[in-house]
Amino acid sequence: MHIAIINGVNLNLLGTREPAVYGNGTLADLEAATTAYATQKGITTTCFQSNHEGALVDFIHQFYINSLGQPAGMVINPGAYTHYSYALRDAIAAVGLPTIEVHISNVHAREAFRHHSVIAPVCRGQICGLGKLGYLLAIDALLADKV
Amino acid sequence: MHIAIINGVNLNLLGTREPAVYGNGTLADLEAATTAYATQKGITTTCFQSNHEGALVDFIHQFYINSLGQPAGMVINPGAYTHYSYALRDAIAAVGLPTIEVHISNVHAREAFRHHSVIAPVCRGQICGLGKLGYLLAIDALLADKV
Amino acid sequence: MHIAIINGVNLNLLGTREPAVYGNGTLADLEAATTAYATQKGITTTCFQSNHEGALVDFIHQFYINSLGQPAGMVINPGAYTHYSYALRDAIAAVGLPTIEVHISNVHAREAFRHHSVIAPVCRGQICGLGKLGYLLAIDALLADKV
Amino acid sequence: MHIAIINGVNLNLLGTREPAVYGNGTLADLEAATTAYATQKGITTTCFQSNHEGALVDFIHQFYINSLGQPAGMVINPGAYTHYSYALRDAIAAVGLPTIEVHISNVHAREAFRHHSVIAPVCRGQICGLGKLGYLLAIDALLADKV
Amino acid sequence: MHIAIINGVNLNLLGTREPAVYGNGTLADLEAATTAYATQKGITTTCFQSNHEGALVDFIHQFYINSLGQPAGMVINPGAYTHYSYALRDAIAAVGLPTIEVHISNVHAREAFRHHSVIAPVCRGQICGLGKLGYLLAIDALLADKV
Amino acid sequence: MHIAIINGVNLNLLGTREPAVYGNGTLADLEAATTAYATQKGITTTCFQSNHEGALVDFIHQFYINSLGQPAGMVINPGAYTHYSYALRDAIAAVGLPTIEVHISNVHAREAFRHHSVIAPVCRGQICGLGKLGYLLAIDALLADKV
Amino acid sequence: MHIAIINGVNLNLLGTREPAVYGNGTLADLEAATTAYATQKGITTTCFQSNHEGALVDFIHQFYINSLGQPAGMVINPGAYTHYSYALRDAIAAVGLPTIEVHISNVHAREAFRHHSVIAPVCRGQICGLGKLGYLLAIDALLADKV
Amino acid sequence: MHIAIINGVNLNLLGTREPAVYGNGTLADLEAATTAYATQKGITTTCFQSNHEGALVDFIHQFYINSLGQPAGMVINPGAYTHYSYALRDAIAAVGLPTIEVHISNVHAREAFRHHSVIAPVCRGQICGLGKLGYLLAIDALLADKV
Amino acid sequence: MHIAIINGVNLNLLGTREPAVYGNGTLADLEAATTAYATQKGITTTCFQSNHEGALVDFIHQFYINSLGQPAGMVINPGAYTHYSYALRDAIAAVGLPTIEVHISNVHAREAFRHHSVIAPVCRGQICGLGKLGYLLAIDALLADKV
Amino acid sequence: MHIAIINGVNLNLLGTREPAVYGNGTLADLEAATTAYATQKGITTTCFQSNHEGALVDFIHQFYINSLGQPAGMVINPGAYTHYSYALRDAIAAVGLPTIEVHISNVHAREAFRHHSVIAPVCRGQICGLGKLGYLLAIDALLADKV
Amino acid sequence: MHIAIINGVNLNLLGTREPAVYGNGTLADLEAATTAYATQKGITTTCFQSNHEGALVDFIHQFYINSLGQPAGMVINPGAYTHYSYALRDAIAAVGLPTIEVHISNVHAREAFRHHSVIAPVCRGQICGLGKLGYLLAIDALLADKV
Amino acid sequence: MHIAIINGVNLNLLGTREPAVYGNGTLADLEAATTAYATQKGITTTCFQSNHEGALVDFIHQFYINSLGQPAGMVINPGAYTHYSYALRDAIAAVGLPTIEVHISNVHAREAFRHHSVIAPVCRGQICGLGKLGYLLAIDALLADKV
Repeated sequence: MHIAIINGVNLNLLGTREPAVYGNGTLADLEAATTAYATQKGITTTCFQSNHEGALVDFIHQFYINSLGQPAGMVINPGAYTHYSYALRDAIAAVGLPTIEVHISNVHAREAFRHHSVIAPVCRGQICGLGKLGYLLAIDALLADKV
Repeated sequence: MHIAIINGVNLNLLGTREPAVYGNGTLADLEAATTAYATQKGITTTCFQSNHEGALVDFIHQFYINSLGQPAGMVINPGAYTHYSYALRDAIAAVGLPTIEVHISNVHAREAFRHHSVIAPVCRGQICGLGKLGYLLAIDALLADKV
Repeated sequence: MHIAIINGVNLNLLGTREPAVYGNGTLADLEAATTAYATQKGITTTCFQSNHEGALVDFIHQFYINSLGQPAGMVINPGAYTHYSYALRDAIAAVGLPTIEVHISNVHAREAFRHHSVIAPVCRGQICGLGKLGYLLAIDALLADKV
Repeated sequence: MHIAIINGVNLNLLGTREPAVYGNGTLADLEAATTAYATQKGITTTCFQSNHEGALVDFIHQFYINSLGQPAGMVINPGAYTHYSYALRDAIAAVGLPTIEVHISNVHAREAFRHHSVIAPVCRGQICGLGKLGYLLAIDALLADKV
Repeated sequence: MHIAIINGVNLNLLGTREPAVYGNGTLADLEAATTAYATQKGITTTCFQSNHEGALVDFIHQFYINSLGQPAGMVINPGAYTHYSYALRDAIAAVGLPTIEVHISNVHAREAFRHHSVIAPVCRGQICGLGKLGYLLAIDALLADKV
Repeated sequence: MHIAIINGVNLNLLGTREPAVYGNGTLADLEAATTAYATQKGITTTCFQSNHEGALVDFIHQFYINSLGQPAGMVINPGAYTHYSYALRDAIAAVGLPTIEVHISNVHAREAFRHHSVIAPVCRGQICGLGKLGYLLAIDALLADKV
Repeated sequence: MHIAIINGVNLNLLGTREPAVYGNGTLADLEAATTAYATQKGITTTCFQSNHEGALVDFIHQFYINSLGQPAGMVINPGAYTHYSYALRDAIAAVGLPTIEVHISNVHAREAFRHHSVIAPVCRGQICGLGKLGYLLAIDALLADKV
Repeated sequence: MHIAIINGVNLNLLGTREPAVYGNGTLADLEAATTAYATQKGITTTCFQSNHEGALVDFIHQFYINSLGQPAGMVINPGAYTHYSYALRDAIAAVGLPTIEVHISNVHAREAFRHHSVIAPVCRGQICGLGKLGYLLAIDALLADKV
Repeated sequence: MHIAIINGVNLNLLGTREPAVYGNGTLADLEAATTAYATQKGITTTCFQSNHEGALVDFIHQFYINSLGQPAGMVINPGAYTHYSYALRDAIAAVGLPTIEVHISNVHAREAFRHHSVIAPVCRGQICGLGKLGYLLAIDALLADKV
Repeated sequence: MHIAIINGVNLNLLGTREPAVYGNGTLADLEAATTAYATQKGITTTCFQSNHEGALVDFIHQFYINSLGQPAGMVINPGAYTHYSYALRDAIAAVGLPTIEVHISNVHAREAFRHHSVIAPVCRGQICGLGKLGYLLAIDALLADKV
Repeated sequence: MHIAIINGVNLNLLGTREPAVYGNGTLADLEAATTAYATQKGITTTCFQSNHEGALVDFIHQFYINSLGQPAGMVINPGAYTHYSYALRDAIAAVGLPTIEVHISNVHAREAFRHHSVIAPVCRGQICGLGKLGYLLAIDALLADKV
Repeated sequence: MHIAIINGVNLNLLGTREPAVYGNGTLADLEAATTAYATQKGITTTCFQSNHEGALVDFIHQFYINSLGQPAGMVINPGAYTHYSYALRDAIAAVGLPTIEVHISNVHAREAFRHHSVIAPVCRGQICGLGKLGYLLAIDALLADKV
């Protein structure tokens, strides 16, 4: 199985700013840890981060094309695009790959605009507030059949 | 560590109704599988289900008192109480134990009233749409430090 | 056919308070009259009243289990739970029995919060404002095929 | 007693379109069945249908005038006018005859705009979702004193 | 005169959690102090606390029946049920006893959902933010005629 | 301790209009009774009434300056300014004196615009619906430590 | 000058129903009194009433055509159409005649749906709550230049 | 009969600013014309204008006291206070004198905030958009019984 | 193929009023041009205009009956009924003929109430802002399969 | 005349995903068919697609500069950007070229967020639900004067 | 050029309360610094502060009259009146002088009610969050032509 | 000190379109004038403009990294991204540099969607409506301590 690990806007700053909220590890650390975890499970990963909404859409399209004929899935933390990017929503719905939305912090305990995700309705599920562990759990979720 | 596995209203019906949405396993199966998983991790569990909002509050209070002096946490699927039980919210906030909210289905892809949780702001995190696996991932989350 | 006659919160006060709104008969009178009417039609009834949301859910679950293999239906007046008990809604939807929601008074002519029912969308139909006659008509409705 | 059976906009199509929702009987069948039922109860009926809001108002005015000095009531299914015709509402309120609002389908289980009736607050009661039986039950309701 | 002192959901935790908000005294202390104060004024009290909405309704009904023929009133702090329990509202309205709603903290200075009470419109008055003193003042209020 | 008794717009009419709502006593009676009650408790009062929002703000500023170095508090019934005077709110918040908002009638049982106070979030507490007794209870509340 | 006196839905009932709200005079009385008043001022009138929204639109179109080349205006009481008939609004805007909207009762003191007029923005002015005198004042207004 | 002609905030600028909207006459002209018209009808007037909300309230109170025992009424154009001064509303309601609200321009054809009057529900009626003639018609309205 | 060209309320005024918005051609011109265009394409047309909501519904019903057994479609410009006539919406949905909604002006650039169509969800598509050309394009659309 | 054919986010997927909604043709097919149609009419086209909001804005700016001094227009299907890209709206408004907004599907019959276009108010018109034919009709519309 | 420096409600408290928000300088300091700055630029100033909405309106009127025939402008910090004083808005619009709205703190980062200004739409511009420097920059803005 | 001058979407069009709103100078003129002004104050600037939301985020990240260890600030006019780009908001909040939001026109006097900024709450302040002078004033603001 092949899984895309997609991080959206401002997530390249991980580990350099606001460690109280997001922890000390960098994005590279996160991608390395996630990939290592996936490797243990026999899964390959493609990691991608961009601050550009259009680049995230492009990546999803390309990942879908590259994955044709093999089992694949996506783990996505869209950052602030979570709350208004119907473009990303349509991209995920169009390619039809099983997708888990992840947020490092508990978005429901922050500003009101973060309580609503326009992405979640087209994902298989959502994990939030569990720190970077959420990415690993999302891999478990894509691997598993529902118990 | 000791973890309460709390299932709210209508979850006693698991496995007997709507298998397309909730799978075939019964609540007993779910509790057994979750406990087995926890045992592997060296965690003890107390499983509780009730259709009574007040009984859920009572249980949370009592679990908190029983857990004083030892590491403890809660995994809770409040069922429909998720969307209006400020009583449950206050109970969780009052006892202050780390708590993960779990939903078997992706609530964001269902009726509008299911999109909002009054419980989530006082939890550490939320997992939805991952089937019964969500309970196991929630145990992982309570065990782990943030990566 | 077997029909549950379910009365929710505060309906045990029937006949003792606010006769201008609810008439003079007690709940026992109502249950007796409804059962007598049903008997005439060859229907058996189980009458239940509780002020506890959870007890109403428990009853619906149990009635469903007791009714397996025979034609059954429910007549329910949830009282004030009509307006916020998504727990009751989910219970009715889960058991899947044909259900008629009844209100003694015309809820549309009272306070704004009474104009919306969270229960009605999962019922077969709703009768309001016809006094206690509504219970009898609901039995007719469960008996009848649509004309 | 004399009762008007009033059907509003698009109800002339009964039986020719959407039988899954509205059944196979025509409006004529419905009016005949309702009148037959009323006759059994010793009631006379006047049946009226129009797609014109103004014609429905005119009919209500005229029926009121014709009924002066004798017991009378109205059973009305306004069709889509239910949701915005304050003109009909005012007509019903002005003539002051006891009126039952009837809907063949369960409006609460359909599009959001159908969940609100501007007519119901000036009626004695409302019946919905019980198919054409609702018209017969409405006659019972007009006949009966509250139990 | 006889007065019920009714505490709702989570108020059994008084004194053991969040002393900064609710003070150090326990519920038992509060009930004792309130009863002592009432005794001074020649009033008898019945104290009741439950986390169960239905049990609170049951108590109100029973207190009303027990009080028939003598002057009586209620002091109620519904806890979180304040904000959504139309069941409690209807119970208070139905028994018709003079009732004062009390909140220990200033609900208007907390989360938005705490700014609205569905109970207050059927009470004689409301006291909030004055700590446990509010219960004593509520007794004064029930005793007094309006100045 | 020194306490300001502040009455806002239209409260000079007390006792001359709408006795069913506000009682028969005049504002002078109210101020005299409140001062007498305060004197018993060893408290001095300054009474002030104005229909001018600006004059109420001016008074609060001046009272604060006059009270520097001694314990002081305010009891305020802003009248209709309760519902829109952010100016008064800012004045109370700026001077930082403990303040109790009082309403003679139960504002929650009246028109919708009276259900929301822009003042309450910056007060220590609020009392409503207890008639003129509310002023006396507010003095008790300012005197007392939380029980 | 020629003025149309247009009465909308349910106004044909004037004088026969709800005299406490609308007075005892009939529509014919109103039209006669208004015409008499206009005659005194040297104005001719055309009176029209219909319960049909479309007929009111047709009349406005025809009145405009008949009035071409002479000074003309309209006095209109649309009844309940006031609150939702964008069709009437567009008709009045299209013909461009000076128009005064009149309501016999004070719509702002009645149900919320009556507080908003979709017609008023395209009229020259609005008079409400002054009883049938409003029609006479509207004639004065059409006659006068602004003072 | 004695009538107060009350002009609120910014109306002292009449005739000096925005003649396209408000005409060329000054406030003095308006008051003179209105008084002259009233004199013809045998009515005395007291004219008052203030930019101070509190002064308007004070005037209404004083006018009421001065008018005790004789027929009296008020014509009021509150200016922008129309849209938020619940203080003025309560003053008018408290004194209970018949009052007509007047606006020179058609408020319904201007910015959205001008479409709602918090004053109108406690007046007998409202006239808007008829220029300064509205004041004269308001006098007629106070003089007349409903036709 | 047979196509109904339906024009709703106020569209009979085309060419006589507001040429800046609607152009100079009359309704007859529009119907002639549309019919000529259709004839070129081998299509017959029935043109209908009414200011009566009910007459528009009647026409749609009748057109459907007349068209049974042959390919047919509808082009409809409902005028202001676009924004509130659920009656028209239900009529179009009931007959099930492919329908294109047309507006001469760009409704999205006009008043807010014109931005929402209650008709569009039951049409195949919508064309607005393209002047009378929209009617011709709608014919093209009914003729074509989707490219 | 020169016309830009602009396709926004996710439209590069045309023909490869969701053929039931969008048909089988690819974006290249659509662009070829549109260009061929335009060539027949003597119009040249520039086709552009991007998933990047900023690239769409850049293109519009550049197209405007390239078109200076010659007749030009734009046909744009912004995809999901339709619903929130005020950036695109401002770009279209700034360049001032006549623009037709096109949607392949009937956006009014899909999710609520698709019912509102922030682009349409600055376009000349909008076509939706007519499949890829909409692009051809848009070219007709840009060519034509209003009939 | 002559500029009014107008400070609204509670701004007389500057420097004595909440220095963390508003700094240490008093209103006199602010007025002196602003006047000194203006003098450097060759501008004269009139400084005014009031807690009375009406007095602020009076001042604006008088300042306008005093400034007739010479270049003039206004710098205004209305305090809390910013958020509801349509009276002030109308006063500024009526006199038509170029006006800059200033706020010392960043109102957009405070309570929700402070995010909206009813004054700003009739000003030339708005400066907020820049401390007392905002007053000086506002003078620069009134002096400058747009760059 | 080093300051970034950041212009967002469509601001590259300055001087070429809509001079009535935005003046005649080009973006290059604006950047030159701003830099010259900054140089006078001893400040260096980096000017950046992009129509790409992601590029604006990238720039802010990079500017922050480049500025580490020296005083720095940002002046940003996000254009239409002001109203929905939570991505930009998060970028500004994450880097934590003092930032002033600038708008050339008075956004509060334009369309409703321009009245709300999602950026302003994380900035130090906001300047709007002062033309290009706003950029210079923003530099002053970043330089100054609060007076």
